[in-house]
Amino acid sequence: MHDEHEAVHRVNAFFYRALDNLDLEAMDEVWVHAGPVHCVHSGWDGLSGWSEVRRSWERIFNSTSWIRVTPTRIRVDIFGDVAVVTCTENITAKSEEDVGLAVAQATNLFRKTPEGWRLFHHHASPAPVHVTHPFSGTVQ
Amino acid sequence: MHDEHEAVHRVNAFFYRALDNLDLEAMDEVWVHAGPVHCVHSGWDGLSGWSEVRRSWERIFNSTSWIRVTPTRIRVDIFGDVAVVTCTENITAKSEEDVGLAVAQATNLFRKTPEGWRLFHHHASPAPVHVTHPFSGTVQ
Repeated sequence: MHDEHEAVHRVNAFFYRALDNLDLEAMDEVWVHAGPVHCVHSGWDGLSGWSEVRRSWERIFNSTSWIRVTPTRIRVDIFGDVAVVTCTENITAKSEEDVGLAVAQATNLFRKTPEGWRLFHHHASPAPVHVTHPFSGTVQ
Repeated sequence: MHDEHEAVHRVNAFFYRALDNLDLEAMDEVWVHAGPVHCVHSGWDGLSGWSEVRRSWERIFNSTSWIRVTPTRIRVDIFGDVAVVTCTENITAKSEEDVGLAVAQATNLFRKTPEGWRLFHHHASPAPVHVTHPFSGTVQ
């Protein structure tokens, strides 16, 4: 059971690395390709089916020159062959000449397949940005 | 299996009726009270645990005088004891003297318990509003 949690944490991290690397092949690897597949990008309508979801990543990757997503407050709950991951996405992204900061709440659902845990549902939504002044401790 | 889908559809409808009726007792009934419970209200940070989630509904119901949520594009997928429901929430709400329209994408996760399917995860997020002019057919 502990190992299963570790495995889900690893696949969840793999998903965010694929995003950071704008790596469509890694996205192919981490998602389920058949059966129910859903994706809600932050502020978008919901997408259904792998081909539609894959196209959306392709579009996002093509219009993004640089992105870093750091997941925090990661929680993993496993119910049989389904894993529910909730986390906060801390996002810095560059498109054209604009750099943007954003925070999103994410629900990621993974299914246990013969190849391991695979993503079949990603739902991200805009969340309030809490400004924390990370360096304030060093200058006071 | 068909019956299970029907049961999940019914509990999902019960949840939205509880919301329409600002009925906290019905919310008590439809949610799981123990174990992992998560809720992301549209645009909010994520909440964890039933007591925190219940408090949020109490707060929302206290500040809402009238609300109608019509779920559309409802999809139900069942994996063992977990049901994944995705839908579009079409929302009309009145708070103070203001009436607002909104559309949200929702992910609702239900767990099969001895008492039936119960909600343990609700994630709603703002979605684009597509203006459809429902009466345009009658005036043209």
